[in-house]
Amino acid sequence: MQALSQAQAIKEVVGGSIVTPKGYQAAGVHAGLRHSKKDIGVIISSAPANCAAVYTMSHFQAAPLKVTQESIAREEILHAVVVNSACANACTGEQGLLDAYQMRNWAAEKFNLQAYHVAVASTGVIGEFLPMDKIYHGIQLLEPEKELSSAEDFQSAILTTDLVMKSCCFSAVIDGKTVFMGGAAKGSGMIHPNMATMLGFITTDVKMESKHLQKALREVTDTTFNQITVDGDTSTNDMVLVMANGESGTALLTPEHPDWEVFLQLLAKSCESLAKQIAKDGEGATKLIEVEVSGAESNEEARMVAKQIVGSNLVKTAIYGEDANWGRIIGAIGQSNARINPETVDISIGPIRMLSKSEPQPFSEEEASVYLQNKIIVIKVELYQGNGFGKAWGCDLSYDYVKINASYRT
Amino acid sequence: MQALSQAQAIKEVVGGSIVTPKGYQAAGVHAGLRHSKKDIGVIISSAPANCAAVYTMSHFQAAPLKVTQESIAREEILHAVVVNSACANACTGEQGLLDAYQMRNWAAEKFNLQAYHVAVASTGVIGEFLPMDKIYHGIQLLEPEKELSSAEDFQSAILTTDLVMKSCCFSAVIDGKTVFMGGAAKGSGMIHPNMATMLGFITTDVKMESKHLQKALREVTDTTFNQITVDGDTSTNDMVLVMANGESGTALLTPEHPDWEVFLQLLAKSCESLAKQIAKDGEGATKLIEVEVSGAESNEEARMVAKQIVGSNLVKTAIYGEDANWGRIIGAIGQSNARINPETVDISIGPIRMLSKSEPQPFSEEEASVYLQNKIIVIKVELYQGNGFGKAWGCDLSYDYVKINASYRT
Repeated sequence: MQALSQAQAIKEVVGGSIVTPKGYQAAGVHAGLRHSKKDIGVIISSAPANCAAVYTMSHFQAAPLKVTQESIAREEILHAVVVNSACANACTGEQGLLDAYQMRNWAAEKFNLQAYHVAVASTGVIGEFLPMDKIYHGIQLLEPEKELSSAEDFQSAILTTDLVMKSCCFSAVIDGKTVFMGGAAKGSGMIHPNMATMLGFITTDVKMESKHLQKALREVTDTTFNQITVDGDTSTNDMVLVMANGESGTALLTPEHPDWEVFLQLLAKSCESLAKQIAKDGEGATKLIEVEVSGAESNEEARMVAKQIVGSNLVKTAIYGEDANWGRIIGAIGQSNARINPETVDISIGPIRMLSKSEPQPFSEEEASVYLQNKIIVIKVELYQGNGFGKAWGCDLSYDYVKINASYRT
Repeated sequence: MQALSQAQAIKEVVGGSIVTPKGYQAAGVHAGLRHSKKDIGVIISSAPANCAAVYTMSHFQAAPLKVTQESIAREEILHAVVVNSACANACTGEQGLLDAYQMRNWAAEKFNLQAYHVAVASTGVIGEFLPMDKIYHGIQLLEPEKELSSAEDFQSAILTTDLVMKSCCFSAVIDGKTVFMGGAAKGSGMIHPNMATMLGFITTDVKMESKHLQKALREVTDTTFNQITVDGDTSTNDMVLVMANGESGTALLTPEHPDWEVFLQLLAKSCESLAKQIAKDGEGATKLIEVEVSGAESNEEARMVAKQIVGSNLVKTAIYGEDANWGRIIGAIGQSNARINPETVDISIGPIRMLSKSEPQPFSEEEASVYLQNKIIVIKVELYQGNGFGKAWGCDLSYDYVKINASYRT
């Protein structure tokens, strides 16, 4: 992506959310799927929103993903997305599909919409059926509003093992008007997205055709959501959905518009923000790990190496133990399918160079130990093969990861 | 592989080891690389042994692997392999290579051999230099003998975080004579072999050319050593080495010999035995997990799916927690590159069918819980795509895995 001018800069909107862009409302309620927490939420666009989505590449796409794809295929327009947590409605066969359609229909009736203008999403345990009486009850309770607290109710209703809510809001000037983009996401385990990830919902008031929104989302997903990993496992329910309702009053934005690049960066900033929040809140995580790889033969190979490092159990446990064991970074790079010259690799952990052109460098263990006490650990790798650059994000592997996952269902 | 007749059956040799085949001796001593445990060992063949080896596919092959490859390339004959633990001599640049040559030379002098008849191997921390004074001292102490206790000294000297020694011994009748095959291995972490694995040493008194031995080893490795995983990380030092010194007095064994298949199965049995011992002793492991996949489009795809399941952190933690969470098995299968029909998958954990043609089956949680208390957990998957069959082995992921790896260097 190109550098933006001062005037084009993407600005963070403090206190912003998915309801900050014009024309969006949200809600989240407790319907009894989870013990006491909120578990059903909705985002509504008053105007018809063009839309784009990316889905898990798992062979086992959950029922709600199939229903959402069908909704979007009809007119490429959405007015609402309704989401439940606690139950993924995945691997639930024919009944699961009927349940997802029923959930969509109930939401359409409640908000007086065409069923095919409603998207559905679910997250939680695989292989269990949706408790349909609770779903029905929950949908009746939803009263969307344009308040930050309503957005937070939604953010809260989509969580499972997450400890914190994930949201973002940015603004930019496009076509002479200030436009907004808000985001909400969930995800903490089974995080190793491939093409799409977890649940992410992005709203904007930019005006654009769905096909261009889809192109932008796919491009940006490859460098953001697809570059995080918590545990190397790809979920059956991953989905990122973007709605663009045009309420900002901009002209139709196309790839030929001079501000197309501004929009791409606005979307990238939003996706990266949500992706990093997910990695940081990975199950049992105590630290966010950011890996930057430069000098690869291509950007794709740089991203591949970065993700291999950040996904290594041995790197993750070493970071948890605050141990500057760069040999494990070598182990991870060595196993990558990228083109590597084993004689020309630099590795730094934070400000400390540990390997230069593959020769170990003397370093102060004390200095390394102090750096590793930080909550964000940056690993930089230079490969000297070309100009490819890429980043990936993950988290450390702690006792709590094992604890959480040894008894997830109970 | 074909079924063998009763007379051809492979027999386990109780109390056997790497010195059971004719013409082999071993030793292992404490040279001070580890705090108090044995850390240098040697296997000697009195007769020139034809040989074969497979090595890690990591981009970063450690120095001893390069030296061993050079030794074998010269005449395809070995008389000795000398091994140290505690230091991997990996990513040690030019100095590391010189050190590995020096280690080889000292061993050659000590045992009065040509340097190129000696293989070297190292295992331990990456990026540190061999303490050459201790290596020299240790080699002088080595006094190989043909005793079980000497073989056990060797088995012990090659360990790092391993809790137990790994060995095997089998016999078979080839060309009318009883032949023996012994094995020793180490490996507990950074176990996700690709083409070769960890350290494995196999001795046999069968007579055969190195090229045929290499062919057999490569074939067998794909279904044994390459099918285990502890943590998804491939080591820089993985190597399996086989020596065949012909001392049994058999005629030269070639792929055309009627007993070739017997030899293949003898080798497969030995490699599978060592591989399973490594998986079972994975860092922090409390259970061995065996995954059998049938009905894949090919044996390769069956092995790929099996390894994906056994390598999933979420499957591993669920097994540790004795939780029959088959959704995680679905998660792992879903992410495989194998051809899968998401509508036709069966999953069983032990004797309990949980998914039939992708429809969840009611099962007794109590019965599942009782089964999951076993020390060996068998997961079976049927894909209904073809006749491909494959197995993989791994272990559960426990608190102790994190504990061991959070402070590996300290």
